[in-house]
Amino acid sequence: MPTPSFHAAQLALDLVGVFVFALSGGLVAVKKGFDLFGVLVLAVAAALGGGILRDVLIGDVPPVGISDWRLLTPAALGGLVTFVYHPGVERISRLVRALDAMGLAAFAVSGSLKAVSFGVTPVASVLIGVTTAVGGGVIRDLLAGQVPEVLRRELYAVPAAIGAVIVVVAGELGALSDWVLWGAVMIVFGLRIIAVRLDLNAPKPLRTTGKPTGK
Amino acid sequence: MPTPSFHAAQLALDLVGVFVFALSGGLVAVKKGFDLFGVLVLAVAAALGGGILRDVLIGDVPPVGISDWRLLTPAALGGLVTFVYHPGVERISRLVRALDAMGLAAFAVSGSLKAVSFGVTPVASVLIGVTTAVGGGVIRDLLAGQVPEVLRRELYAVPAAIGAVIVVVAGELGALSDWVLWGAVMIVFGLRIIAVRLDLNAPKPLRTTGKPTGK
Amino acid sequence: MPTPSFHAAQLALDLVGVFVFALSGGLVAVKKGFDLFGVLVLAVAAALGGGILRDVLIGDVPPVGISDWRLLTPAALGGLVTFVYHPGVERISRLVRALDAMGLAAFAVSGSLKAVSFGVTPVASVLIGVTTAVGGGVIRDLLAGQVPEVLRRELYAVPAAIGAVIVVVAGELGALSDWVLWGAVMIVFGLRIIAVRLDLNAPKPLRTTGKPTGK
Repeated sequence: MPTPSFHAAQLALDLVGVFVFALSGGLVAVKKGFDLFGVLVLAVAAALGGGILRDVLIGDVPPVGISDWRLLTPAALGGLVTFVYHPGVERISRLVRALDAMGLAAFAVSGSLKAVSFGVTPVASVLIGVTTAVGGGVIRDLLAGQVPEVLRRELYAVPAAIGAVIVVVAGELGALSDWVLWGAVMIVFGLRIIAVRLDLNAPKPLRTTGKPTGK
Repeated sequence: MPTPSFHAAQLALDLVGVFVFALSGGLVAVKKGFDLFGVLVLAVAAALGGGILRDVLIGDVPPVGISDWRLLTPAALGGLVTFVYHPGVERISRLVRALDAMGLAAFAVSGSLKAVSFGVTPVASVLIGVTTAVGGGVIRDLLAGQVPEVLRRELYAVPAAIGAVIVVVAGELGALSDWVLWGAVMIVFGLRIIAVRLDLNAPKPLRTTGKPTGK
Repeated sequence: MPTPSFHAAQLALDLVGVFVFALSGGLVAVKKGFDLFGVLVLAVAAALGGGILRDVLIGDVPPVGISDWRLLTPAALGGLVTFVYHPGVERISRLVRALDAMGLAAFAVSGSLKAVSFGVTPVASVLIGVTTAVGGGVIRDLLAGQVPEVLRRELYAVPAAIGAVIVVVAGELGALSDWVLWGAVMIVFGLRIIAVRLDLNAPKPLRTTGKPTGK
């Protein structure tokens, strides 16, 4: 089982993920012309929405996302930073994207781990891990009035699903250890970075009408 | 109370409903140009979203929709079928619509039945039955960035409500039997098919401005 | 602790809030051209959505919003009134706005009070109070296909947050009394009315591109 050292590191990763997802939420809100409250709400929703969905689905209420200061503070801080300094945040968007991949990895692993520890079935644990990782972005986009990016663009959810599968399979085999969890985090992070670099996307349905796109 | 034979048949109906609702979700996703992941998510959301809302509202977590392979498999399969063969699915849209009416009927009856069996009050059981039946379509439309169809078009929710009322009233009278449940399924199905055939819609508010629509 | 007299008055305030929020939901639905069912759903969602979110987040399921006739009836009634008489409702929109401020106040106080009484942590209780107050409007806007008004316009959530903070701080100090609760309601109501009158808005991010707006 995961040791205390993992939990400490996990918290650190979660805090990074929360802060970076808050930046992404804040940036969307700024682009939409929301006021201070709207920027804060979108930042918090993006940062904590995935974990809140996870906790509602596994019955751990009230969700830690709204009851734990350690998570709320970086979420609100990310929103505030974006509000007062958003051109700077946009300029480092490449860094934000790398940190976002780290948040994705941390949330996929910690979400599926929490589901496993609550005795949830394996397949549900995988789905809950993915929901934790992508749910915040979906809520952010719904509130901002745009179709969730995860549904249209780039390989985003697939690395999260792979990480969750690793955690769940290890749990079934009784092989959950710090090494496995950190390995899963690294794999999700690596796959996501590769997808961004190579501009990989999930396949699209074949078009059956209109001109061929190859000119 | 419902007998084992009903539960077996109920499962069969649920599987049909899940698969057909998944086709509807997949078709919307294909039209929106989503990638494979997006098609699968929209298919699964349309197929299982109503049941997930039901289970969260009655406190049966984690929801069976994410923990039961027998429901997840047809949901994902419906998405895959749509992804690889969507022109074929569109061509049989009349059949899909008939199957959709069967899914609506199955979900309205099974949703309200589950609520009753959890000791939920009658009025809440009716609302939960309707939510089970139409919730997946609402989530599908929200994720796809369109106003939920059920709010604008055709008599869709009303047959579901009638079926849920039948189940709840029978439950209150201690008269829940296979016959009643099957009768409710048939009534919802029949009313929905009639609404489609006659192009019936719920009434709209009177217009008070602009030119009369009769030219 | 709150006395029976407060609970009676609280129920009265809640009923007013539910009815007025239902009018707001119905009006949005009429403008969008929804049918009777759509108008009723949007009215009920606006009126009860905040309380349903609150109850799901604190684990009080099924939510009272779908199980208590006393709340469902004014919600549906508000939708029906809007459906049959919406020009009249629009004409008294100034009155509706004042009543809406009262609903906001009632929901912020009753939502945070319920969270405190469920043993939820202080910071989560504040967030749940705000969610109760603004959640219905957010769900209404999402279903209607528009960006939630609360994210873009006017000081709406801030008075609710102030009221929730008062309730939670009083709870922590063991000083919850009818006077405190009524005082909090009055403060939220008063701040909201002032914001409407003075057309106050939360600050917006500085624009960094394009022409200066001051000409």
